Amino acid sequence: MSETAINPVLNTEQAQALAVATAKAMYARDNATQSLGMKIHEVRPGYARLSMLVRSDMLNGHCSCHGGFIFALADSAFAFSCNSRNQATVASGCSIEYLAPGAVNDVLTAEAVEQSLAGRTGVYDITVTNEQGKRIALFRGKSYRIKGEVIAGLDATAQANGAA
Amino acid sequence: MSETAINPVLNTEQAQALAVATAKAMYARDNATQSLGMKIHEVRPGYARLSMLVRSDMLNGHCSCHGGFIFALADSAFAFSCNSRNQATVASGCSIEYLAPGAVNDVLTAEAVEQSLAGRTGVYDITVTNEQGKRIALFRGKSYRIKGEVIAGLDATAQANGAA
Amino acid sequence: MSETAINPVLNTEQAQALAVATAKAMYARDNATQSLGMKIHEVRPGYARLSMLVRSDMLNGHCSCHGGFIFALADSAFAFSCNSRNQATVASGCSIEYLAPGAVNDVLTAEAVEQSLAGRTGVYDITVTNEQGKRIALFRGKSYRIKGEVIAGLDATAQANGAA
Amino acid sequence: MSETAINPVLNTEQAQALAVATAKAMYARDNATQSLGMKIHEVRPGYARLSMLVRSDMLNGHCSCHGGFIFALADSAFAFSCNSRNQATVASGCSIEYLAPGAVNDVLTAEAVEQSLAGRTGVYDITVTNEQGKRIALFRGKSYRIKGEVIAGLDATAQANGAA
Repeated sequence: MSETAINPVLNTEQAQALAVATAKAMYARDNATQSLGMKIHEVRPGYARLSMLVRSDMLNGHCSCHGGFIFALADSAFAFSCNSRNQATVASGCSIEYLAPGAVNDVLTAEAVEQSLAGRTGVYDITVTNEQGKRIALFRGKSYRIKGEVIAGLDATAQANGAA
Repeated sequence: MSETAINPVLNTEQAQALAVATAKAMYARDNATQSLGMKIHEVRPGYARLSMLVRSDMLNGHCSCHGGFIFALADSAFAFSCNSRNQATVASGCSIEYLAPGAVNDVLTAEAVEQSLAGRTGVYDITVTNEQGKRIALFRGKSYRIKGEVIAGLDATAQANGAA
Repeated sequence: MSETAINPVLNTEQAQALAVATAKAMYARDNATQSLGMKIHEVRPGYARLSMLVRSDMLNGHCSCHGGFIFALADSAFAFSCNSRNQATVASGCSIEYLAPGAVNDVLTAEAVEQSLAGRTGVYDITVTNEQGKRIALFRGKSYRIKGEVIAGLDATAQANGAA
Repeated sequence: MSETAINPVLNTEQAQALAVATAKAMYARDNATQSLGMKIHEVRPGYARLSMLVRSDMLNGHCSCHGGFIFALADSAFAFSCNSRNQATVASGCSIEYLAPGAVNDVLTAEAVEQSLAGRTGVYDITVTNEQGKRIALFRGKSYRIKGEVIAGLDATAQANGAA
């Protein structure tokens, strides 16, 4: 997926700067991602990599990480990747396959990769691994672009700068 | 699905009592369900109904309920329904379709219904609605029964009592 | 789901007549559904029920019905239900859970029920059962309405008649 | 995924020979795959690549390839990849996202890659593309290993030879 197909005015550096700025703006107002202690390690157009420490308050009745938190980590990586072009985008649906349990104090990493983007809809694959590289879960997210921008007004500015 | 196929020793009342006892035991040790403020309204063999208030710390960057929390509510309803016979059971995979956003202060209800149970695996459908009855999300969970009981030793006791 | 929300000009009888006419038109030009020997037993707005005989050329290497044919039956029921208002609609994605195998000479029935319809997108649940009522598969389809009608020009006529 | 984890007696060449022999045996008795005109281009342990010509009898009412046939192609690639170690394996569930339509006379290719294999269960990702390399669909399959072998008795022979 090339960002130039999405916003032909931006060059690669500008698209990357936009992805970083968008992620910062999203994170600043995303209470959920913050309160779960997620960290953003990398964002690019159509890509995001986040991590989360499995805390004791994230354990389920079987003493492994509650599926909802593994899902939330993958879901956040999905959100940062599909919003990375500053075009407001939401999830229309997701699926997750649990491959192995997450344990307390594990640092889980979710890597989101854009598989398809056509019109308003996209498909993203997110892989969740632990520190040993073991796959914990596979997540597939379907996105739908809505009206508006993540950072209101930024696209116009970027396009004006890009056209200058 | 009849609980008698699962545990032929229990009559309907005993199966119901076991479902309630199992839910209490699970809830007591499930930090995630507690910290998210979920309430259990009804459990039966293969069935659970829970609710959750959408708090401000559950909002995403688009100011609606983060998908992870809607998922967590549905996932917990799934967990209580598929563990309701005191046989330890985990999720092998799930999918969710988001139909409408959840707003702050909404009370969301998740109702889990067993669709299939054969051998170690089951399928459960969970519907999430708001107070106006509007459907917010549809969730489908696949379960896998593992070794052990939710309340260790209880089955033996129940069976002994049932056989008496 | 009420058809009046979709096409407020049609009354219940007209909506039902439109569903039947649409199904006939779709079936007439649907080589796949015909060549697989599927029969349409009932269509209503947002609903369809089809059956298919499991033929020997539908068996897989394990001598049970190839998942693709069970999927095709459910997928056709999905298509007839989501196109039942004569508004051209396609699948954006589907999932299926196989619960039990289909055997040669089984007559499988797929019943499609609309779970949600908002804007251009809908969600449909399809249950596949055999003659003994045993559940063979659960299918969930996501639909997307495109431009055009199944029977071109019919809606205009119907609306003109309805308004007369 | 290393085949040595699955069958420690086989070396890489033997595992590859077993994958090819298994695919031939499966294909010979798989009426569905044959009648749909699928061709097997490559099989390896945990991997398969198949193609299929979109025939006119595969078109749906919208004149594009019926989703069931795209599914069947992906499903067959899934079956050949998850049975490639001669251990009888079936689908427990699948999901597909349709990204672009298939047209009559398109040659569609499905490539199946093993993402996870643990105990009896596996997860496989299948990508369907057309001749221009355009992605037509993404499929994710969940497998379950049952008793028996695809080619009965072969494993014993292979192991005896391998041990010799």
